[in-house]
Amino acid sequence: MMGAVNKPVVGIIGTGAIGGFYGVMLARAGFDVHFLLRSEFAAVAERGLQVDSAVHGLLTLNPAQAYSKADDMPACDWLLVGAKTHSNADLAPAIIHAAKPDAKVLLLQNGLDVEDSLRELLPDSLHLLGGLCLICVHREGPGLITHQALGSVNVGYHSGPELDDAARMAIVEEGAGLFRSAGIDSQAMANLHQARWQKLVWNIPYNGLSVLLGASTTPLMADADSRVLIKDLMAEVVQGAKACGHEIPAGYADFLFGMTEKLPDYWPSMHHDLLHKRPLELAAIYARPLAAAKAAGCELPGIEALYRSLSFIDRRNV
Amino acid sequence: MMGAVNKPVVGIIGTGAIGGFYGVMLARAGFDVHFLLRSEFAAVAERGLQVDSAVHGLLTLNPAQAYSKADDMPACDWLLVGAKTHSNADLAPAIIHAAKPDAKVLLLQNGLDVEDSLRELLPDSLHLLGGLCLICVHREGPGLITHQALGSVNVGYHSGPELDDAARMAIVEEGAGLFRSAGIDSQAMANLHQARWQKLVWNIPYNGLSVLLGASTTPLMADADSRVLIKDLMAEVVQGAKACGHEIPAGYADFLFGMTEKLPDYWPSMHHDLLHKRPLELAAIYARPLAAAKAAGCELPGIEALYRSLSFIDRRNV
Repeated sequence: MMGAVNKPVVGIIGTGAIGGFYGVMLARAGFDVHFLLRSEFAAVAERGLQVDSAVHGLLTLNPAQAYSKADDMPACDWLLVGAKTHSNADLAPAIIHAAKPDAKVLLLQNGLDVEDSLRELLPDSLHLLGGLCLICVHREGPGLITHQALGSVNVGYHSGPELDDAARMAIVEEGAGLFRSAGIDSQAMANLHQARWQKLVWNIPYNGLSVLLGASTTPLMADADSRVLIKDLMAEVVQGAKACGHEIPAGYADFLFGMTEKLPDYWPSMHHDLLHKRPLELAAIYARPLAAAKAAGCELPGIEALYRSLSFIDRRNV
Repeated sequence: MMGAVNKPVVGIIGTGAIGGFYGVMLARAGFDVHFLLRSEFAAVAERGLQVDSAVHGLLTLNPAQAYSKADDMPACDWLLVGAKTHSNADLAPAIIHAAKPDAKVLLLQNGLDVEDSLRELLPDSLHLLGGLCLICVHREGPGLITHQALGSVNVGYHSGPELDDAARMAIVEEGAGLFRSAGIDSQAMANLHQARWQKLVWNIPYNGLSVLLGASTTPLMADADSRVLIKDLMAEVVQGAKACGHEIPAGYADFLFGMTEKLPDYWPSMHHDLLHKRPLELAAIYARPLAAAKAAGCELPGIEALYRSLSFIDRRNV
């Protein structure tokens, strides 16, 4: 290990594509990073982690500090959670085991209110934060991660011990600083809900359409009809966010649309979930935003029809 | 042949599932029926036609009067067109060859305005009619047709030589009588546009969703989400029809919904087109109804999104 003195100890809970990528980046920047794994533990313990990045080159971390049980991990200052949103409540025991009493737990996940089911299982002393990753990354095999493009993380505060806003923002800034010191673009967001809605402007169209139309970003961006579908869905997300009190910056949807046009061909994570017959993250990415908008008196019919179609597909994908 | 004296001579243009089924039924009722075929000519000339019907039992017509060229056919009083809507204009020469000067040409096809591209290529003396078939039938192989359920045909007048409404209705009644004398439920419709919109209440949801969700009627009717998708699409068709001046009878959508629930598991024709990499009938079933409604000031966003999704899928299905 490079000198980890004075740097926070970082634990990665769920070392898939997201957890693996950010963990390796932080470890290479000199942080003391510990990886909790399940099915891939043996492979990573033996061969370490490898990130094949179109941006940063081939990054290897060998040995990686790999664990199959949270009990074996040292107490961490920061815990980065990259698991699927379904399992957040199940992760509470591992998080509690691996956390210092005042640790910061950062959920690197998409969707709305993904923190809620976990929060009620955590002690009040733990800080819970959310991070929205704008990144094209996927798991290629055990311990093998392919990073195609982007990588920024927007961080916001969810809940924790009683603190004033300034103290909470300081923690958020500390989290963003963690990433920035590893060469990763990161912004502290004053409002986590706003950040989550903002990220949904991308996730709602691209994740869903990749499953419904069986297509990755390049064909989706090359076809006049799918472009309209994407724009219409984005506009509905912006409308839903507004109804919930979050004004998405003007031009942000266009920015994401244009950015996706320049991306290398990318399969969103929901496509990989479908392919591997894993449950789709429909509650976090569709059901909760729809319910929140509806509670604010706002119907989003295009997103609702997409959600119903995906629900049908999800139930048959077993 | 059974006695065909005094009965009209019937020609079948495009002997697929629809043309084959009705042609065999008419031939068995004693009509003099002649079948025009392309790729399946040799098989049908050799083995005849066979309809395996859950309603009527196993029906065989052997020999069938099969032709590979319209020039070889006798002049027909009625021509039943069961080909795909895309090729209507291409069928004009065959129809003209096989038609008596005052023949009735009946397009057994779904969708709106499918007669228009053909009409301009036909002599004015020919009567053009449309027939909407409510039937579960598909082609199993060359000359082999499986009939699962239903079978009724609603007939309406499109265009022809100058005649008053009563004379036109008499021709429509003659067409409906043709089917009825073969044991097939058939109704003369005063308004072909109305009949076509009415049939779209079924075709727009079930054809599209069978392609988009990869599902036949039984799973579509068994899932709470797809049921809502179907009902919402049906409601939009009724709304579009109304905007175009056609009041769909109250309860008709519910009737089709309930009827489909009781059907044997059925794959709509658009699914078969997708499977066999044939172009989907999107112009007739989606684009023209959408354009007609829009011209009447009526937006149908759910159907439009479905149409865009299907267009995307169709273009990639090569």
